[in-house]
Order: sequence, then C-alpha cells, then structure tokens
Amino acid sequence: MRYFFRVEYDGTGYGGWQHQKSTPNIQDALERAFSTVVRAPCRITGAGRTDAGVHARAQGAHVDVDGPLRIRHSEHSVNALLPSDIAVYALQQVDDSFHARFSAVSRSYCYRICGRKRPLLFNRVWPVFYKIDHDRVREEAASLSGVHDFSAFCASGSDVRHARCTVLSARFEPEGDCMVFAIEANRFVYTMVRSLVGTLVDMGRGKIIESMTDILAKKDRARAGTTAPACGLTLEKVNYQGVD
Amino acid sequence: MRYFFRVEYDGTGYGGWQHQKSTPNIQDALERAFSTVVRAPCRITGAGRTDAGVHARAQGAHVDVDGPLRIRHSEHSVNALLPSDIAVYALQQVDDSFHARFSAVSRSYCYRICGRKRPLLFNRVWPVFYKIDHDRVREEAASLSGVHDFSAFCASGSDVRHARCTVLSARFEPEGDCMVFAIEANRFVYTMVRSLVGTLVDMGRGKIIESMTDILAKKDRARAGTTAPACGLTLEKVNYQGVD
Repeated sequence: MRYFFRVEYDGTGYGGWQHQKSTPNIQDALERAFSTVVRAPCRITGAGRTDAGVHARAQGAHVDVDGPLRIRHSEHSVNALLPSDIAVYALQQVDDSFHARFSAVSRSYCYRICGRKRPLLFNRVWPVFYKIDHDRVREEAASLSGVHDFSAFCASGSDVRHARCTVLSARFEPEGDCMVFAIEANRFVYTMVRSLVGTLVDMGRGKIIESMTDILAKKDRARAGTTAPACGLTLEKVNYQGVD
Repeated sequence: MRYFFRVEYDGTGYGGWQHQKSTPNIQDALERAFSTVVRAPCRITGAGRTDAGVHARAQGAHVDVDGPLRIRHSEHSVNALLPSDIAVYALQQVDDSFHARFSAVSRSYCYRICGRKRPLLFNRVWPVFYKIDHDRVREEAASLSGVHDFSAFCASGSDVRHARCTVLSARFEPEGDCMVFAIEANRFVYTMVRSLVGTLVDMGRGKIIESMTDILAKKDRARAGTTAPACGLTLEKVNYQGVD
C-alpha cells in the first residue's frame, strides 16, 4: 500500500534531501523512523532533492508498506523518532499509480532576503546589506513568468537534458521586514532559484545592467550573477492534482 | 548623550533580558558589545525584562555615551560583536528626558501555538496537540480588552504593588498554520501572558469551564490554568510616542 506525506525540515544541519554516505540527510532520517514504526525496511521516495542547507515547508514524499497504517498514530510515532528539525504531516493513503516525484505538477520555492541582521530568522534569510533598487528587482522578477530556457541559471555539472522550464508565477515582494522572491514552475534546473536570486540582487545593486530577458537569451552562466546562499531558500510546496 | 535602539533576540540560549551572575543574558551581551565599540563602560537600560527563553522582535533600550555616535557604523560594529541570536537596529539619538522604560506607553506580545510539530518554528511556537475549540478561545481572548485586575494571572513571588492593567487589544487569530494570541497593554504583571495562554488553551480543550471574566473577578491564581512554556512568547514591540 502506498502512503503519501508532507515533510517540513530545517535543512541547516543536513547535506540535503538525498541519501549520501558521509553526511546526515533527510531521506535517511525518514527511512530510519518509518522502518522502526512499520517494523520493516522502508524506502522513501521524495518529490525532488533539496541542496545542503535548503529548507522545506511542504516537501512531498511517498512510502510503500505491506499493511494499512493507523494514520494519526503512525504520524505521531514517526515524528517522535525524528529529530526536532524534521517532521511529517498530512499522511494519507494514495493509489499505487501516484508517485511523489512524477505526479507533481509544479513546485513553489521562496527565497528570503533581509536588509538587517535578523536573530529570529537566523539561517532562514540571506542578510543583504547593499542598497537595493526594489522597483528594478520587482520588474526583472516578474519578467521570468512564461516558458524560458534557463541554461544561464543552471550550475555546471548538472546532467539534465534541457533547461526549459515553465514559470507559472514569479514575484519579488515584501514580507514583514524582509523581501521574498516567490517562484512556481513545472520544474527547476540545478541551483536555478539561488542563481536567479543572486542575479536579481546584483541587478538591484547596479552590478548587472543587462536585463533578465537578455541574460536568458544568451544562455551563458558567466553573464548571470552570484549564487545566493542556501539558507535563504525554502521549498514551500510540491503541488499535486487531487492530493494536498 | 542618550541613544535609543531596538533589540531583536532569540531568547532560547539566555536566562532572560536582565543581568544575572551565573547565566548568559541579553543585557550583559549588549553592554559588552557597546562598551567595546564606544571604548568606555556602558550601561544599557531596557524597557522591561523578558524571562528565560522568551524572544523579542522590537524590545526598546537606551544607552548613555559621552560623544556623538556614527549611527550606521556603530550599529554595524555592535551587531558584528554580538552573537547571531542578538541584533540591534533603529539606533537614534533621543532627548535626555526620554527613558526606554518610563517613556514606554504600551507593550505588545505575541504567543504562538501550533497543532503539529513545526521544525521551521522550533523554539518559536508551543506545539499543542489537543483538539481546541477555537471559537471559545477567540471569545474568551477578546473579553480581556479593558481595565482588569490580573491577580489571578500573576505568578507568586512577584513584588508589584498592584495587578491592574489596561489591555488595549487582545486577539486569538490564525497566522499561517499556527494560532497567535496577540495582546497589547500599558503594563504586564509577572508571567501574565503565559498564564493567560495556558488558561485559554485549558478553556479550548474543555478543562476549564469558568469564563475569563469569572476567573479575573475571583483574583485567585489557583483558578487559572497552566503557565504556557516560554518558547512560544515574543515581546513584539515596546511602543513609544514619537519614537519608532
């Protein structure tokens, strides 16, 4: 039987979502907890990887188990076994044809920037002390909507076949004392959000004069800006049709 | 010359705002940082104490120094010396008649509760797994507005002359996946907010049948509920007239 669930995590202490031999990771922690609760080895399939230090509010994942689970009891037991920086919720049985990765229709990310030191948001925002032209950043961010080739924002070493992504929405807007870059797309290439944010900040402080449209068209990583640090990035939600 | 400033801190690692010999505290950390920057011993006066583990977003404080400060430079230097869980901002010269504590007209606190484990809000919310009657809690919270004697919500051992406080607003409302109890008053007695929240939760889960009005009238601490843990409480802002 297949069960879907959401995962929220503070990625600060982890080498990322995916299983790796030498570094603590979210997938291993979940597999250990689920295996203990169902008393059988469990493999967890996530909607996608997140990098070291990146957080998630509503990552999607599924697990296959032999018998039916008591939902509330299992959720509670798994959370009790997990460390304080990882939690599961919204556990629910799904059809065997559902797949946490392949059934996802889009992913939403938020990247948070703040102009001052923020103890209550430590490791959740990127403190940017430069003076930023917010109007320009807002306009350039909005221009990302639509279908584009994001080769200019894809880290080298990536093995994806193509960098064409459909951006459903992209906004740069205030959130309390911070600014948040919120982007939803059908897919993302490696380090895409952090490269976009680094470039937007470089535009906002006048270090990059070229427009986003020009940089996208030239498909040259060297024209884009710096890669923003992982701590500011949160995978807000993996979106599915019919499953919340 | 007197300078006012705001302080934001994550109180998790501290024994509270106030100077104490054996425990790390916010006041000592600020005095060390300011003394280094102005190269003279500095005493910091805060608007009020916060307990061990309680956070602040816009605590108010003042410091007296001999000569004028270069605002941006001093703020930056103090923040560089402070640990990552304390920051100062909004540094500004004020009249010598201004006093961080006595000039304050009101204080706003928020207490956050969440019905599930929240890694991204660890040590910022109180996870409450009971089923809560939100309508009842909302009504009882709203009934706190006005002038009341809060003896029933004042921890023993407190040496205040009286427990009469003017509550300017009190609301229990949703904030994302959480619920927040927001209260603004001219003054607060010791552990008042945490005692109110513990009582509201006990009301919400049906453990306390009496109304807030009845408990206030009886002025008996034994009738109120549990004291909610410190981690969910944030001193949101100390409010002044003419200084922000």
